[in-house]
Formats: sequence, structure tokens, C-alpha cells
Amino acid sequence: MTLAARYVGEGGIDVAEVEPVAPGPGDVQLKVAFTGICGTDLHIQHGVMDARVSLPAVIGHEMSGRVLACGPGVTGWAAGDAVTVMPLRWCGDCAACRAGHRHICQRLDFLGIDSPGSMQERWTVPADVLVRLPASLALSYGALVEPTAVAVHDVRRAELQPGERVVVVGGGPVGVLIASVAVAAGAEVVVLEVNDHRRSVAAGVGLTVLDPRRDDLDDAIASWAGPDGVQVAFEVSASQPGLDVAVACLAPRGRMVLVGIHGQPRPVDLQRVFWRELTLVGARVYERTDFEEAVALLDGASVPAQALISHIEPLASAADAFDLLASGGQVMKVLVDCGATS
Amino acid sequence: MTLAARYVGEGGIDVAEVEPVAPGPGDVQLKVAFTGICGTDLHIQHGVMDARVSLPAVIGHEMSGRVLACGPGVTGWAAGDAVTVMPLRWCGDCAACRAGHRHICQRLDFLGIDSPGSMQERWTVPADVLVRLPASLALSYGALVEPTAVAVHDVRRAELQPGERVVVVGGGPVGVLIASVAVAAGAEVVVLEVNDHRRSVAAGVGLTVLDPRRDDLDDAIASWAGPDGVQVAFEVSASQPGLDVAVACLAPRGRMVLVGIHGQPRPVDLQRVFWRELTLVGARVYERTDFEEAVALLDGASVPAQALISHIEPLASAADAFDLLASGGQVMKVLVDCGATS
Repeated sequence: MTLAARYVGEGGIDVAEVEPVAPGPGDVQLKVAFTGICGTDLHIQHGVMDARVSLPAVIGHEMSGRVLACGPGVTGWAAGDAVTVMPLRWCGDCAACRAGHRHICQRLDFLGIDSPGSMQERWTVPADVLVRLPASLALSYGALVEPTAVAVHDVRRAELQPGERVVVVGGGPVGVLIASVAVAAGAEVVVLEVNDHRRSVAAGVGLTVLDPRRDDLDDAIASWAGPDGVQVAFEVSASQPGLDVAVACLAPRGRMVLVGIHGQPRPVDLQRVFWRELTLVGARVYERTDFEEAVALLDGASVPAQALISHIEPLASAADAFDLLASGGQVMKVLVDCGATS
Repeated sequence: MTLAARYVGEGGIDVAEVEPVAPGPGDVQLKVAFTGICGTDLHIQHGVMDARVSLPAVIGHEMSGRVLACGPGVTGWAAGDAVTVMPLRWCGDCAACRAGHRHICQRLDFLGIDSPGSMQERWTVPADVLVRLPASLALSYGALVEPTAVAVHDVRRAELQPGERVVVVGGGPVGVLIASVAVAAGAEVVVLEVNDHRRSVAAGVGLTVLDPRRDDLDDAIASWAGPDGVQVAFEVSASQPGLDVAVACLAPRGRMVLVGIHGQPRPVDLQRVFWRELTLVGARVYERTDFEEAVALLDGASVPAQALISHIEPLASAADAFDLLASGGQVMKVLVDCGATS
């Protein structure tokens, strides 16, 4: 048997012994080291995504671990290999897949949402979702590859150039990762974040931060960026005020990357989009190249992994880990220790 | 003296004898042949742009004509040359100008709005705004170069590729011009237009048209484009329903070009922008290259100039020409005959 944390409906997270899944042809069984809790996992817990999950649901998709056993036909992997997972399986047949954009497959199977995830001791996945981790990268940091790949993808969608000025609206884990990836790409970055603790974490890793609730926010951005505005804004807050400032702060021909998920239609200042010939770009998950760059950035210490990991909770206390993250207090990323931590 | 149509405030258009402006150093005095009335001119008449115009204001910026006299220092132009005008003067110093995007200068002087326009017999402009017209192009068609350049710019902003499927939301003159330019670029195009007459004009020049008020619009677009959606949508209607369909009809990674001017913030389905990784692009006026391509497209009969010109009114009846266009009935483009028509 293997221990697993499960969403059991109506806000409930339990931990139970479940039968491990034997690796079938093409599959690999992993010993999971760490699983990070994502905002999406909180959404699942809160019932927002009940239409996509099958109860009881083992969730989790930000992970690191080691290969435990390979199913028939698997080559290139051996027991003990350190890995993470790019948790996407595409249909190969929809408009997005046929156009070569499989990561936005319109029938995407997202491991940890649409099918079982990694918040358990042993996890069996198709070998083709594995991404190798270097021996030099701590497995706790390896659990940050997935959100870092989100950030890499967002920065790539922005077509960011060295020397450009960037506003990141939202300084949670994804916002700080985007800011860090943008700095690594040569940009000058300011992060807007309302939460005092998150602002102090971002400042602590060397990022320039502003509290967007200040009355003179426009002036503060202008005094940092100059009166023309910035070339790129990342909207990570999923809030209306965040969206408004992301559009308003852009220079002529500026680009706004939409990272936060806005569940309802939002008023957008299209007059400004027209007048300044702005570009608004949607960015969703990542491609293989983003994962590989994320591994390299973490391994090269271009991403402040240590500062982002606020807490590590044992798998048996997974429910507490969810509560901790939901508290919205002094927390950035919470990892669940799934056992295979060395 | 020279005859001029002028906006005199509060909806009024008069026609009066005014003193012609002698060409100063670097200027050229033109005999105006035709001036088209643009939606922007109607906005001026309706008082929406009173902050930008100085009364009485000679307006008009879609024109053709001939060189009458050159001021000191002007080279390359001779009396009788057929010309149109790219009616933009930029500051050279703002963020847009310094970034090489002078057409979206944040202090743009738009001739015919911010300074006197072409709805008069003689018009004096800086020589550097002139664009040469070929002898083979009728001067009435030459008055369509400016709106055609808008369409060329919009299509260029879309990065349209041959074979792509396109929805144009709005089948007035600009919509039909965008559709025509897109067809010339090798795209497959459908035009959505509520006005019966405009739909029949568009159909008459060979465009596929749909009435967006039909209940099964989504199905109708899908039966034309296939279920995946289209690669590119041009939002020309400036309406909320038009915006909604332009976003909704796009395939994954589709691009929406914002052509219509939305005077207020509009709800946008950002969830879909995210999920399909859509791109929304603002497009404003044109660059020199767009003007030159517009001349070539009109001269090569790739644009249905004849079908777009509904009426030609004499300058003395300019007020009637405005009323005709404002009627919203059986009308596409109305030209004002400013005298130098041969």
C-alpha cells in the first residue's frame, strides 16, 4: 500500500492508504519526494473544479522524485533517476494540437487534475512526461520546476528583450518566479503585491517591490520606469485592479501577458489598447522547452528557490498544509514531503 | 479666395470662402480633387472631439488632388503631380517616436483633426506628407488610399498568412477594405454586418457575408470555418456584441485586431484569452509602407473602389454629404468633390 492525500469533496482533504498503480507498458512508477501545493489545488479543494476531478482525487502536479520501477518497453530511465514531471497529456487531434500547440490542447489531460496526481508516496505516469533533474539540484527545489516553467513560458510569450522594463502584478510564487526569470533574461523588474509578507520575501531576494494600494501608484511606477511606461506587464493577480494597472502602465506598443485566470469577463480599457497599439497575450502552462529552461535556471540558482519555500509539511499532515496556504498569511510556497526526499 | 467646408460647432457644417494659405518653406499647395468623409469626421461634427478642433475647423483627411504650387526648398514635386496625403505629423520625441513607432506618436498632429484638413479647394501641407499617385489611378479612387492604408496596417498587425481564415466584424468601408486586403493576401474571409445594404455591397464584390443577428451565428461561422474557429478576427464594429464574437470565434493561438474605437472599457472574456492563448492587438492609423501598399492595391484593382463609393457630392453641398452618411441607410463611402477632379 502507499500513502496518498486526497480531495474527498466539499473542502475535505484526507490521507489514506491506497493500492499503488503498477507501471504498465510505457509507464514509470515514481517514488515521490516533494509535491508543492498550487493555487489550482486550492481551487480544487474549494470545489471550483468538481466537474474535472473524480472523487476521491489524488491531486498535486508540482513534484520531484525518483524512478522506482519501469514498465515494459520503457527505455532511457533507470531506478534512482531524479525526475520531475511535465503533467500534460494532449489528444494530438484538436485544432491546437494540429497547429503544433499541444500544450494548449483543447482536450488536455492535466495530471493531478483530470487524472491522479503526485501527492502520494508512489505515482505511476507515462514515461514521456518525465523530465530529468540534475544531481546537483536539491529535490525540494525540483518541486519548483513546474511553476518555474510557467514563469519561463510567460516570459517567452512576452518576447522579452534584455533591458526592457517590466511590471509584474502579483508577488506570490508565480509572480516572484516570473520576476526572477525576467531578471535572468536581462530585464528591469518591479513587482506589485498587496501582501506585506510576500512583498518582504520579494524584496529579500533583491526584487524592487511596490504596494499597489498606495495612492500615488501611477507616480511611483513612473518615477521608477520613467513617464513613458513599461514595455511588458504580467497580470498575475487575477484581479480587476491588477488588470487595470497592467494595461495602464504600458508604453506604446507595450505587451501585457495574461497569467492570472479571470473567471468572469473583465472590463478592459480598449481605447488605450488601440491608442498605444498594445498587445494582450494569453499564456497557459508551458512547453517542453520551458521545462528544460526551468530546470537550468533552478540548477543555476537564477531562481530564489530557498526563499520561496515557506514550509515543508509531512504527507500525513497534508490537510494542514492546505490550511496553511489558504490562510494567506506569512506564506509563499508550501511543499508536502512525500517521503523519497533523498 | 478658396471654398471650404467647415465644422462650426454643435453639429453645424458650413461652406465659406476663406483665404488660401500660401505655401511656406517646405510646403506644397494642393488643388484638392476629392475628400472622403470618415467616421471620425462624423464624430467631429457630433462634437465628440471638440477638445481637439479649433473652430471654424476645415476637416477632412481622405483625399486626392494635384500639386498647385511648391513653397521654397521643396524638391521632387511639380505642379500637376497627382497626390494623396498621409495626414500624420509626429513630435519625434515621445516614447512612441523614440521607439520608432512614429505613427502612434503620443502627441500626433492629425491633419484634418488637429490642424486644417482637405475639405476645401486648396490645401497647403508640408511636402513630407505627400504620397504620389500613379497616373493610372482615378483621382476619385485616390481618395480611398487613406482608409485602404488603415486596412493594410490592420492586416499587417495581424501578421496574416496565406490560407488563414478570417472573420471581419463590421462591413462598412473599413471592414470591406480589410476584407479585400486580407483576400489579396491569400486569406479566406467572412464579413459580419448588420446593415442590409452594406451586406449586399460586400456580397456584390465577392465577399462571403453573414448577418450577425441570426440566432445560429456560432453555428454559421463554424459551418464556414470548421469547428476549431478562425485564425484572425478584426473587430471593426466598436460594439460589445462585435467584440464578443471576435473573441469567441478564434481558434487556439488566434489573433484579434482591435480596429474599432471602444470609447468605454468593455468586458472581455479573458478566461478564453488565457485558455486558447489568444493575442489581442491594437491597431491605429498606418505607416508609410501601408500607404504605399494601399496605392498599389487600389491601382491593381485589388480593392473594390467603385463599389465602395456610394455618392459624390459637390463641395457646396458638404452639409448634405454629412447628412447622407449619418443617415446610416444605403450608403458606404461618400466623397466630396472639391473641384480639381481631372
